[in-house]
Amino acid sequence: LAREQGSKLWGGRFVGATDPVMEKFNASIAYDQRMWDEDIRGSKAYVMALQKAGLVTQEEMEQIHGGLDKVFVEWSSGKFHIKPGDEDVHTANERRLKELIGEAAGKLHTGRSRNDQVVTDMRLWLRNGIDTLKGNAIELINTMVERAAIEILFPGYTHMQRAQPIRWSHWILSHAVALSRDVEQVEEIRRRVNVLPLGSGAIAGNPFNIDRELLRKAEFLFWGSMCLTHLSKMAEDLILYSTKEFSFISLSDAYSTGSSLMPQKKNADSLELIRSKAGRVFGRCAGFLMTLKGLPSTYNKDLQEDKEAMFDVYDTVHAVLQVATGVISTLKVNQKHMEAALSPDMLATDLAYYLVRKGVPFREAHSCSGKAVYQAESKNVPLNQLTVKDLHSASPLFDSDVSSVWDYTSSVEQYSAPGGTARSSVTAQIEHMRAWLKAHRE
Amino acid sequence: LAREQGSKLWGGRFVGATDPVMEKFNASIAYDQRMWDEDIRGSKAYVMALQKAGLVTQEEMEQIHGGLDKVFVEWSSGKFHIKPGDEDVHTANERRLKELIGEAAGKLHTGRSRNDQVVTDMRLWLRNGIDTLKGNAIELINTMVERAAIEILFPGYTHMQRAQPIRWSHWILSHAVALSRDVEQVEEIRRRVNVLPLGSGAIAGNPFNIDRELLRKAEFLFWGSMCLTHLSKMAEDLILYSTKEFSFISLSDAYSTGSSLMPQKKNADSLELIRSKAGRVFGRCAGFLMTLKGLPSTYNKDLQEDKEAMFDVYDTVHAVLQVATGVISTLKVNQKHMEAALSPDMLATDLAYYLVRKGVPFREAHSCSGKAVYQAESKNVPLNQLTVKDLHSASPLFDSDVSSVWDYTSSVEQYSAPGGTARSSVTAQIEHMRAWLKAHRE
Amino acid sequence: LAREQGSKLWGGRFVGATDPVMEKFNASIAYDQRMWDEDIRGSKAYVMALQKAGLVTQEEMEQIHGGLDKVFVEWSSGKFHIKPGDEDVHTANERRLKELIGEAAGKLHTGRSRNDQVVTDMRLWLRNGIDTLKGNAIELINTMVERAAIEILFPGYTHMQRAQPIRWSHWILSHAVALSRDVEQVEEIRRRVNVLPLGSGAIAGNPFNIDRELLRKAEFLFWGSMCLTHLSKMAEDLILYSTKEFSFISLSDAYSTGSSLMPQKKNADSLELIRSKAGRVFGRCAGFLMTLKGLPSTYNKDLQEDKEAMFDVYDTVHAVLQVATGVISTLKVNQKHMEAALSPDMLATDLAYYLVRKGVPFREAHSCSGKAVYQAESKNVPLNQLTVKDLHSASPLFDSDVSSVWDYTSSVEQYSAPGGTARSSVTAQIEHMRAWLKAHRE
Amino acid sequence: LAREQGSKLWGGRFVGATDPVMEKFNASIAYDQRMWDEDIRGSKAYVMALQKAGLVTQEEMEQIHGGLDKVFVEWSSGKFHIKPGDEDVHTANERRLKELIGEAAGKLHTGRSRNDQVVTDMRLWLRNGIDTLKGNAIELINTMVERAAIEILFPGYTHMQRAQPIRWSHWILSHAVALSRDVEQVEEIRRRVNVLPLGSGAIAGNPFNIDRELLRKAEFLFWGSMCLTHLSKMAEDLILYSTKEFSFISLSDAYSTGSSLMPQKKNADSLELIRSKAGRVFGRCAGFLMTLKGLPSTYNKDLQEDKEAMFDVYDTVHAVLQVATGVISTLKVNQKHMEAALSPDMLATDLAYYLVRKGVPFREAHSCSGKAVYQAESKNVPLNQLTVKDLHSASPLFDSDVSSVWDYTSSVEQYSAPGGTARSSVTAQIEHMRAWLKAHRE
Repeated sequence: LAREQGSKLWGGRFVGATDPVMEKFNASIAYDQRMWDEDIRGSKAYVMALQKAGLVTQEEMEQIHGGLDKVFVEWSSGKFHIKPGDEDVHTANERRLKELIGEAAGKLHTGRSRNDQVVTDMRLWLRNGIDTLKGNAIELINTMVERAAIEILFPGYTHMQRAQPIRWSHWILSHAVALSRDVEQVEEIRRRVNVLPLGSGAIAGNPFNIDRELLRKAEFLFWGSMCLTHLSKMAEDLILYSTKEFSFISLSDAYSTGSSLMPQKKNADSLELIRSKAGRVFGRCAGFLMTLKGLPSTYNKDLQEDKEAMFDVYDTVHAVLQVATGVISTLKVNQKHMEAALSPDMLATDLAYYLVRKGVPFREAHSCSGKAVYQAESKNVPLNQLTVKDLHSASPLFDSDVSSVWDYTSSVEQYSAPGGTARSSVTAQIEHMRAWLKAHRE
Repeated sequence: LAREQGSKLWGGRFVGATDPVMEKFNASIAYDQRMWDEDIRGSKAYVMALQKAGLVTQEEMEQIHGGLDKVFVEWSSGKFHIKPGDEDVHTANERRLKELIGEAAGKLHTGRSRNDQVVTDMRLWLRNGIDTLKGNAIELINTMVERAAIEILFPGYTHMQRAQPIRWSHWILSHAVALSRDVEQVEEIRRRVNVLPLGSGAIAGNPFNIDRELLRKAEFLFWGSMCLTHLSKMAEDLILYSTKEFSFISLSDAYSTGSSLMPQKKNADSLELIRSKAGRVFGRCAGFLMTLKGLPSTYNKDLQEDKEAMFDVYDTVHAVLQVATGVISTLKVNQKHMEAALSPDMLATDLAYYLVRKGVPFREAHSCSGKAVYQAESKNVPLNQLTVKDLHSASPLFDSDVSSVWDYTSSVEQYSAPGGTARSSVTAQIEHMRAWLKAHRE
Repeated sequence: LAREQGSKLWGGRFVGATDPVMEKFNASIAYDQRMWDEDIRGSKAYVMALQKAGLVTQEEMEQIHGGLDKVFVEWSSGKFHIKPGDEDVHTANERRLKELIGEAAGKLHTGRSRNDQVVTDMRLWLRNGIDTLKGNAIELINTMVERAAIEILFPGYTHMQRAQPIRWSHWILSHAVALSRDVEQVEEIRRRVNVLPLGSGAIAGNPFNIDRELLRKAEFLFWGSMCLTHLSKMAEDLILYSTKEFSFISLSDAYSTGSSLMPQKKNADSLELIRSKAGRVFGRCAGFLMTLKGLPSTYNKDLQEDKEAMFDVYDTVHAVLQVATGVISTLKVNQKHMEAALSPDMLATDLAYYLVRKGVPFREAHSCSGKAVYQAESKNVPLNQLTVKDLHSASPLFDSDVSSVWDYTSSVEQYSAPGGTARSSVTAQIEHMRAWLKAHRE
Repeated sequence: LAREQGSKLWGGRFVGATDPVMEKFNASIAYDQRMWDEDIRGSKAYVMALQKAGLVTQEEMEQIHGGLDKVFVEWSSGKFHIKPGDEDVHTANERRLKELIGEAAGKLHTGRSRNDQVVTDMRLWLRNGIDTLKGNAIELINTMVERAAIEILFPGYTHMQRAQPIRWSHWILSHAVALSRDVEQVEEIRRRVNVLPLGSGAIAGNPFNIDRELLRKAEFLFWGSMCLTHLSKMAEDLILYSTKEFSFISLSDAYSTGSSLMPQKKNADSLELIRSKAGRVFGRCAGFLMTLKGLPSTYNKDLQEDKEAMFDVYDTVHAVLQVATGVISTLKVNQKHMEAALSPDMLATDLAYYLVRKGVPFREAHSCSGKAVYQAESKNVPLNQLTVKDLHSASPLFDSDVSSVWDYTSSVEQYSAPGGTARSSVTAQIEHMRAWLKAHRE
């Protein structure tokens, strides 16, 4: 019987051939080849550790380094050929190294399991990936800050109902701040990814490191979900704002598409795609956790699912952040429509405060203002068109100075605490964000 | 300014160029090209409907059919060239048709939105996909039935603790039956997929059909999750049974892999991969439902997520079913180890029934048998080594005929109701499954 | 040493006391007591089977039935006392039965594991639960059909952008139809729930039935997710329609709430709660599947999670259906605002068809119409205000009869295929739904 | 018309009565009453801020504080009566305060929306909750460290197959270390929870704070999922180890239960429940994220789902940590069975290293050792029973000194790097964990 598995890294004790469907099911080279660079760098570092530990000679180390450099050149010039039997990038690189330098290649794997190797490669890859995503997020935050035009007022909404006037800049900065916290969290994950696993200094043998690494990855998948949930909320706001009915913003043609049926349609496809991706990414996180849960500790092959999940989440977040930057930098703010949407009933809270300033407890003042709103609706007039006499049926304390309430700009200027919507407060937030950008770009 | 979007299907009213990152983000050709055949078949049927409705002439129909046949040949011979701007397979096919037959191609889309077209293509694709998966599942069920060796007894487990003796065939048939129900459910989904959407007979315009189709897909994704959850449970059983400690089965080398570090390892990678995939597939289902939830009705671009989810679930279930068939057909059952694992304490329920037959209420008999178990553990002897005198301290009704209890074969023969583990019952299940296979293969 | 576990159903072989935290962790009586009626009915049926099998006498059966009837009276009059040690409703009922009729109670459990009992009780409970939910859904569908006012036209949306004019009744019926399919699916689940598990006819011993029942429950949890996803989409539409900007509908005060801060606010809380619940219910489904996945077959205590999930999904769907019925039956449709939102650009497809009727291929006609839209936007006039001369720059085929295009009612009447938005089509849908309601109420 | 909503906090503008089903659907008092203490403390702090801002007088502040103290006494003595209309704990407390001190109670809500109040209460509650969970986790870690018996060797597993000998303490410490990282992460979350929201210093009005708080909660839900996923893995290991086939550990009766049918059964129910809960908790996380995703920014009523999710995750993690502590502190380690399970094939890696030390590249040495394993299996003898002559067919370099390989203790002592399984390494880990415990208890 041909010992057909003999050429596999683990094939010594095996005598039967692998089923071809199983071979494909088992292989990860189709997606893990994107870690070719990390695999080579990891192996170069490992052979240096072996040399220090006296397990390979200086000469062998140089021979292996030389071979690995040739493999690097092949990959980077697109000339590396994946062969049948290369089940993953690690096997492929070792197979090629052996072709190039012969038996000495076999020394590279002294005391290193493939799992150790995979873990190291993925840590290196993820660290770089996080750096890229951080850069994308910073670009988006910067764009938001640049587009935080202070002058423009428009309705703030809760429950999708008009609430109180706010500044457009207040809205955009709220999303920039949320994203800045996402950056801070991914920096924390990067720090944890960057710690060398306990005991992997040299020749180790700690089967439990794998559990630690998995948690890092799960954290990253969840981070992606949260970051895209932030952006999904922003996208939902902007989709609303770009409806005909709101008309607060217009998307650039570059981020819109039309309908193959209806010639007049201009759809906010970019925003809809952004909104959709939180689902996709969280699905990856959910799927991975479901695979993880209930397994015993140490490595089980089930964990191979981690790679595709990690790559897909990276690719998705990467694309979303770039598209969002494009959308925000090119959208047109329709100041006229925004301001036309401000209506006197949005000042009903200010009307209550008017009474509070005259000594009425807030809860009673709220009730009086509510009655005035009801009266205006019944009479079918805007709230600010009620006469002082009309208002007296809600509270006798209303006087002619109530007219001062009906000013949107004065209304927003009341909220000058940090994080508020007053000019001074928004200006401070912009300055804060500029300083934050400077600090996190370095 | 060049009207760069003019060449898009929807480009009449657009003047700005699309951002290249957005173009890629928006495009689905990378994955939806696998529906090229369905797209061509759908278009051929549609143009026949247009001709019947008098919207294209007989001649135009023939011209379009001829062109589509050429497109078919290009795809099937691997010669179709995707060009920049082909955002999806529908656009690509229409673009190519126009190159081949000129302006008449434009008539094909009368009264048909791209969404209608996508919906039709996916229905055709999914119907075929379901047929393939059903065939795979039937192959697996058949393999299980063939391997349902009736003679072999082994421990049945609940809570992963030895419970009562059962036949090996009983175990394997329980999984075959579960899978047969999965087949029946996917047949129901196929029936629903195969129903023409209301109003899509000819020139329609029903924006709500899209909601219906989504639910079909969600059903399919969930079906995949349930089917793989079944197989995950079976895999978990087999992984346990293939540990050194259980040693009930040995996997063929064709479905095992080794360790690059530890030469003695033979890992049940195939089973671990099978176990893992329920997580992946359910993640797709969860992600898609999260994307769906909270959207308004009709089409939103978010829904583009449906395709990759559907393809990935199909591919995964397809592979799992085939690998599981290979594993089951080649695994070696270690009858000797199975039978050695039967121990007298697994007959404690039979010991209780002995007393029940003597008129003791079951609850009291259970308690007496429990005391006997405790006594045997204290004395460190097997339960069947307790003397009648020993047993008297648990119940005075024990007599020398208690020795008849200690027979595993008699024990299993008690369970002769349908679905039980007696020979007659298991034989009936096998016959039932053979008839089922015959009926569902047709 | 006190044998403190001796009083438990399974206590014979145990000698140590249970930790109180563990006792609470293990107990399910807090939530499974709602199955008290099903537990009693199940036991009454079981004892009849035992009597037929000759395992209890006629007299014993009557004694047990008499005792169980007393337990029934205690529960239904609120006088049943749960005692410490009653870990679940099954234990509680058996404990009470023994207090009432003495040792004969112990015969009830001959050949029945607690798992068999739980499975039976849950099947009975779920069957009733499904009947109730079906009734709730039918009430909601009926309300929708009654409110399907045919006369009112309003904008149909795709991508949240105005697409084509449709009838209000078309919108509401689309959701009624979706819900009717949910009813049909839950009827299928009911049929599967209602099938007696294989081999449970009499005294069985089939440890694999548990796997089958779990799948029924998982199906139910997913059904709840899909049904609420439907309603979430409907709620999202209605939340949009009730914004100030759309103003298409007004919710009854009975289904709105206000703000404790802003007196003018009237929030669509009922719809927001409806929208939210699909998340909750799918979370239960996801959690249960995650718990299930990777377990070995047969019973494992992990599966205790099924009950709270099932009850919570039932309660949530039950409440949502009722609240949705209230919302729909009381909402005010603002016909004036709906019709005011129709705009000529929504007839751009009709403008393209105008050219198609003059022999222009649809794709080219679409492009010409798109140019007209662009021209109208550039001139800042409505599409129907372009002169024939203006239109000539888009296509020379436009003539004065183009004025016939600008009629919303004619536009909707084009879609008279089944499922379309023409009067005849909508009327047919209403008739169809009335017949469906009649058939499914019986 | 009766203005029946007038008594609600937001009732001024409403005229219709609330539907009772809606009232119940909308109410959260059933579960949010557990925050009664936080609500009172939050209100006391808020009124102090109002006094500083000159919005209430010193006298009014004292009056409100006095009233709130009375409300506190009522709750803590179990005498607080919830009345119809108390939709949440905040409403209930304010209603009661007004009954006790009259109209002055109305001043408490100046400039504070109910959302602000809820956010503050939940932050306070969660901070305390985190402190409790941290304490529970530290207790469990401490128990693990105390039970880390260094002397005992047993098989380390990967893929559930015997891999290499390790110390029992190495296994238990690996889980303790994982849990210590969970503690560190929840400390980070606590720090973020403890930061006052931007702009909530005094009278603020920042509708976007709500988004920030939601993310904190989502983080906590995910943290719970990860922590229980860790414990699920540990539970899975222990369930395996407690099977008859492994017999490495025996659970205390206090954490086991039996079967109502099979007298001999002793099931590891406590561990199975621990294993199950990661599913439940992640389901809550998934459900909440699904509810969150796609919402527009600021408050929407959908977000009411956060509370039950948070409470349930807290309660579940709280119970799991306590039960796990009980299980670990009372389980019996069967040293004899553990050591009996060590087998010579687990030293195959050491056999390869024997050749490496003689200059053979590792990959070739691995292959030679694999051949020896195959030979031993074929001859049906343990690996260490092969003669030197036998071994020569695998490699001519084997000599009589190969006998030194067959020593499990020497084998583990090779892994003395940090995190390894050598005595020195394990001892260092214990010391590290003791120091960690000391630092984190303070």
